[in-house]
Parts: sequence; structure tokens; C-alpha cells
Amino acid sequence: MSKLLDNVVNDLSRLPGVGRRTALRLAMHILKMEREDVATMTQSIDDFRNNICHCAKCGNLSDSEVCEICSDTSRDHTTVCVVEQVSDLLSVEKTGQYRGVYNVLGGVISPMQGIAPSDLKIDLLLDRIALGDVREVIIAISASVEGETTLFYLMNSLRKFSNLKITTIARGIGFGDELEYVDEHTITQALMNRRAVE
Amino acid sequence: MSKLLDNVVNDLSRLPGVGRRTALRLAMHILKMEREDVATMTQSIDDFRNNICHCAKCGNLSDSEVCEICSDTSRDHTTVCVVEQVSDLLSVEKTGQYRGVYNVLGGVISPMQGIAPSDLKIDLLLDRIALGDVREVIIAISASVEGETTLFYLMNSLRKFSNLKITTIARGIGFGDELEYVDEHTITQALMNRRAVE
Repeated sequence: MSKLLDNVVNDLSRLPGVGRRTALRLAMHILKMEREDVATMTQSIDDFRNNICHCAKCGNLSDSEVCEICSDTSRDHTTVCVVEQVSDLLSVEKTGQYRGVYNVLGGVISPMQGIAPSDLKIDLLLDRIALGDVREVIIAISASVEGETTLFYLMNSLRKFSNLKITTIARGIGFGDELEYVDEHTITQALMNRRAVE
Repeated sequence: MSKLLDNVVNDLSRLPGVGRRTALRLAMHILKMEREDVATMTQSIDDFRNNICHCAKCGNLSDSEVCEICSDTSRDHTTVCVVEQVSDLLSVEKTGQYRGVYNVLGGVISPMQGIAPSDLKIDLLLDRIALGDVREVIIAISASVEGETTLFYLMNSLRKFSNLKITTIARGIGFGDELEYVDEHTITQALMNRRAVE
């Protein structure tokens, strides 16, 4: 097998969800792409890896020291939404409904994977709250065992701030979900949090 | 959204089978990789795209003008296996059972996709046979409409060479395939080509 092909297949197959067969298919596609498009792509990857920063205020990915959201004075800096990772922030942003700022933890507490509270960007959140402007913290982390542990830890850390409203996003049945396939825990929560039809 | 992140997600999501969500997941993985590993990967991609050649004898991908298989004098140069693409060649090689050489067409005849016989590397095959050393051509292309068209075209082109044995790989039920799920055409072929149990 060609050394050049072997190298590219080996390197690509180290990416998550990419086996050797997919890597080979990607390589064949790369061969059909214009050279300049390939160069643009590899340059983007290198630039991203070497130059991206974590926002000093919220932990979001950023091109500069403070991210666009934290620098945006038109946003509501009294409300902080705590998310696990950048992709969650992007999902919330996509709704276009949230005007507050974020705190990106960079993971959840997981003794199994050796992730301790000190590995998460909780200090940024506490620093921000200590400055005195934050009125509400919305905790929007997944309802897994690790997520619940993280939620519990956060609640404990935030308890010392009086006058701070702490909320979590509602658990319930998603739009388009079939009740038949929803787990009992979610249904229980959805029943408990039922709303009067107006 | 960060410009650096946006660029990498846009570029990665142009790859086949990679949507924006997968591209974002890949970007997050790239962020966790060592910088030098990322640099090695992007360098492999660029090197592959810019320096890979097609073997002048068989159309296989190659680091030099003639590929390793065509340069290997221990192989049987009197038998040529015709395949559609490089991944098919690699699949045959993986069996470890084939000692002949190859001809990689680079596709199949497809009027729908505008692929004419002249777009395929059939000339390399004809040149090779014209040199007089080839005794058997094994046609190993997929049993699709385009594959059958290509087979028909190849048979016509090869007819002029007398004393040339032309074969196709056997169609039948694969190991582990359940008869219940195999299409009738394949079963018909498998029945017609039945073998005496020895």
C-alpha cells in the first residue's frame, strides 16, 4: 500500500467515529477535492488547534481573550446559563431565545473518568458571581448520573450566595417524542411539573 | 460563534458523511489532541493530496510512477484483476490469496453521472495486454447496472485478443448471509453455479 495513503488513513482513523474504511473513503474524497480546498481545510484545522482560546470569563471557545457573547453589552449579564460543553452553548444559542451569558464547564464531574470539580471551569462562575452582578444561574446540564452529581456540587457551591436565584431547565417530554418510548423517570418529572391548559 | 471554530466546522462538514454536528464533535476532539498530532495529521492530508500519483501501469494509487504491486517481480504479471476503485484493490489484497496484478478503472461507465469509457483507465489495460504477457483478465466489478455495462464494454474491447482468458468473480451467497435476505437475482446465480459436494 502507498505510504502516503497509509499515513493519511492511519491519521484519519484516529478521529472519533472514523474507522479504516471511512478513513479510506475520506482519503478518496480528498483526492477528488481541489488542492486549494484541501489546503484551506488543513489550514483551518491547524489554525483552530493552535490559536483558539477559552474565554477568560465563561470558558467558551473564543478567538480572543473574552468571547463574543461575554463582550456583547446588549446581552443580559445578570443571567448565567451553565452548560457542560461548547456544543450545548451552541444549541441554546440556536434557539435565539436566550439573551443572557454562559458558563461552559468543559465537562461534568466523573470519578470514573477522573474528572474532579477542579477540572471544570466552576471557578470562573464563582468569580463572576462574586463580582455581584449575577442574579440568576440557570443550570442546563444533562440528566445523567454525572450531570446530577455536578448539579449537586454546583448547588452546594452556590448556596453561600444569598439573593441568587438558581434554576434548572425543565425536564419533560420533547416535541415529537412518543410517550411510548420515553423513560419512566422523564414521564414522572413531566407529570409532576404538569401545567394548567390556558 | 468563534471564527476559527466556524471555519473548521464549515470545512470539515464538506467531507462526505460529515454533517455540522459531527464536524463540531471532530473539532472538539481535535482540540483535545496534542498540537503535534494535529500537525502530523494535516501534513499527511496535504502530502497525500499533493504528492500521490496514479500508477502508470495499473491506475493504482502510488508514491512513485509505478506502484509497489506492478514493481513486484515476484507477482504473477500474466494475470490482471480489473477493479473499480482502489478500495476494491485493497479488499482483494487483504485476502492474501491473489498474486497477480491489477487494473484500477477509477470508476464504472455511468451515463447518468457523465462517466464515459474514456474517463476510465481501460487504455492502460489494453496497452498491457498488447505487450503480450497477459494470459487472464479477471473482471471484479460490482454487479450494478453500471457495473454490468462496464463489464459488457470490457468484454467487447477484449474480444480482439485471441488466447486471452476472461473471467469474472463468482456471484453467490456470501459467508454469513441469510438466504432469507438475499435478493432473487443472486440466488438465481448461486443456483445456476451450484457445485457438487465432494
